[in-house]
Amino acid sequence: MRATIMYKAGHVRVENVPDAKLVEPTDAVIRVTSACICGSDLWPYKELEPVPGGRPMGHEAIGIVEAVGTDVHRIKRGDLVVLPFAFSDGTCDFCLEGLQTACSHGGYFGVGMVGGAQAEAVRVPVADGTLYKLPVRESDALIPSLLTLSDVMGTGHHAAAIARVSRGRKVAVIGDGVVGLCGVIAAKRLGAEQIIILGHHPQRVALARDFGATDVVRERDEAAVEHVRKLTHGTGVHSILECVGTEEAMRTAVLIARAGASIGRVGVPHYEGTPASQQAFYGNVTVGGGPAPVRAYIDTLLPDILEGRIQPGRVFDRTVKLDQVPEGYRAMDNRQSLKVMVRP
Amino acid sequence: MRATIMYKAGHVRVENVPDAKLVEPTDAVIRVTSACICGSDLWPYKELEPVPGGRPMGHEAIGIVEAVGTDVHRIKRGDLVVLPFAFSDGTCDFCLEGLQTACSHGGYFGVGMVGGAQAEAVRVPVADGTLYKLPVRESDALIPSLLTLSDVMGTGHHAAAIARVSRGRKVAVIGDGVVGLCGVIAAKRLGAEQIIILGHHPQRVALARDFGATDVVRERDEAAVEHVRKLTHGTGVHSILECVGTEEAMRTAVLIARAGASIGRVGVPHYEGTPASQQAFYGNVTVGGGPAPVRAYIDTLLPDILEGRIQPGRVFDRTVKLDQVPEGYRAMDNRQSLKVMVRP
Repeated sequence: MRATIMYKAGHVRVENVPDAKLVEPTDAVIRVTSACICGSDLWPYKELEPVPGGRPMGHEAIGIVEAVGTDVHRIKRGDLVVLPFAFSDGTCDFCLEGLQTACSHGGYFGVGMVGGAQAEAVRVPVADGTLYKLPVRESDALIPSLLTLSDVMGTGHHAAAIARVSRGRKVAVIGDGVVGLCGVIAAKRLGAEQIIILGHHPQRVALARDFGATDVVRERDEAAVEHVRKLTHGTGVHSILECVGTEEAMRTAVLIARAGASIGRVGVPHYEGTPASQQAFYGNVTVGGGPAPVRAYIDTLLPDILEGRIQPGRVFDRTVKLDQVPEGYRAMDNRQSLKVMVRP
Repeated sequence: MRATIMYKAGHVRVENVPDAKLVEPTDAVIRVTSACICGSDLWPYKELEPVPGGRPMGHEAIGIVEAVGTDVHRIKRGDLVVLPFAFSDGTCDFCLEGLQTACSHGGYFGVGMVGGAQAEAVRVPVADGTLYKLPVRESDALIPSLLTLSDVMGTGHHAAAIARVSRGRKVAVIGDGVVGLCGVIAAKRLGAEQIIILGHHPQRVALARDFGATDVVRERDEAAVEHVRKLTHGTGVHSILECVGTEEAMRTAVLIARAGASIGRVGVPHYEGTPASQQAFYGNVTVGGGPAPVRAYIDTLLPDILEGRIQPGRVFDRTVKLDQVPEGYRAMDNRQSLKVMVRP
């Protein structure tokens, strides 16, 4: 089968690899009908040291179940399913608590013996816990929005949940990437009164406004902090969704926080110590977040997609065939594309 | 009147100063009947650069109201009151949310024009919001426990609340100082199933056991992390009360956290960036806390003291007269005393 392999920064290829197949009795194999390139794929695309044999890429997909192991009972051959970016058994203490990204038998696609989803097919461990059957057909117009349940929409929602967004709160979303935009959707959905997007890419900021952002802060660093403070009568915001992962973004997050605020961070931190720790302390600001348990959020978010109340699929601005995936990486890396869908 | 003034590290004196008096119509003046030396007073005792004119010390007290301004209505002359370490108006948005340490008209004793409580008397700004009338007499045997409501018991409770201690949770308390010990009381009170104290001072650890600690970890750093993991079957604890404030203590807090855990930090952070930020991220560990809104917690904690269910006053192991306060500082600084009460 064809699959996407990254060998080192900037070097990503679509190649013939052995077919995905069942290994454990709890596995399923899905034929991928749509996948994506993720903002987080751009980090290795910029930084990856050479990997002998390469690294299989992709962790977001919708597909049709082609085969299930003998110990798979809930998911059936022929089901159309969405694949969360982490697999999880659905039965351990962490899964039962809704933290599937800490599953005792869980893991990530594209790591170790588990392939990636930018491919014709992918093996899915602990399939009964991992996969979520969709109540639509493969050709449904909602597929782009449903595909975001595999990562970005659930991740934006996680940021909002950890940041304790609720009715009437003032919210800032740092970052106008796809997760930031999904964070705006999530904040709006949870009833935020004011949603300030910090970003400066014109089309993305415009989409953020469509999604519910009430204010735009295009400045960076201290000027951004000053602008947010001005927009909030000096007090700062109750909730901050930090959707970038840089030290500067996190510092800004703390400095625009109202006393008692919560920061939900979902950008993988590219820093060792969380900055502005003392300011956070004196303001009783809480910092949380991490890999989003998107599997837990599908039940919550799916109805809003099915009934058209949220349209996260609007973040896709390009669709490529599998063999064009390298072009998709280039387009996202140089910011020509916001998010690329892959149709194998 | 006599009051405690610190001039630089190690130099603390009890001196004659102008009498505390009403300045604003919302002020009260209380005659201090008992006060304390706080662990946080030891930081300037170790580090304070010379201050011209000196700094008035003390922020924990019980006293009798001697005078009230024309705009004080709730508190009356003759009331026995406890003084939270921060003053707060009780009416601003932050106070109404229970975050009195962010009060719009609030501040700290011993800072600026507001004197300290290690003194014969102290001026109390926004007295109606700040002071809490006690339903006992000055001579009551519960006074030591009630005095801890002004800071350490409320601060331990804040750590536990931010760390989301609840029934059945596994909890670690880092630090066997007074706040750590009050954290043990708070964790026990909130129903923790396992309470691991990290400390190595024999008497303090023994008191922690009396207060409800189920396990003691005397090691530091990596050995401590390993021991806690062993005590929790490898998974770590749900809640961590970080009651020290050093970088090492916070690093330990993150490394003993179960995935999804919450850390409540109440030790003033002596570090710039919160350490182990990436480990916290990958484990979805939340870090919160700050100056405790102890005023908010008095309603919650007072009944348990009055009815004898908790006895935080047991942390006092020495009582001095006002003129002996410098000896009290020395005794706490060299760890001869755990906490010193001052009876002016």
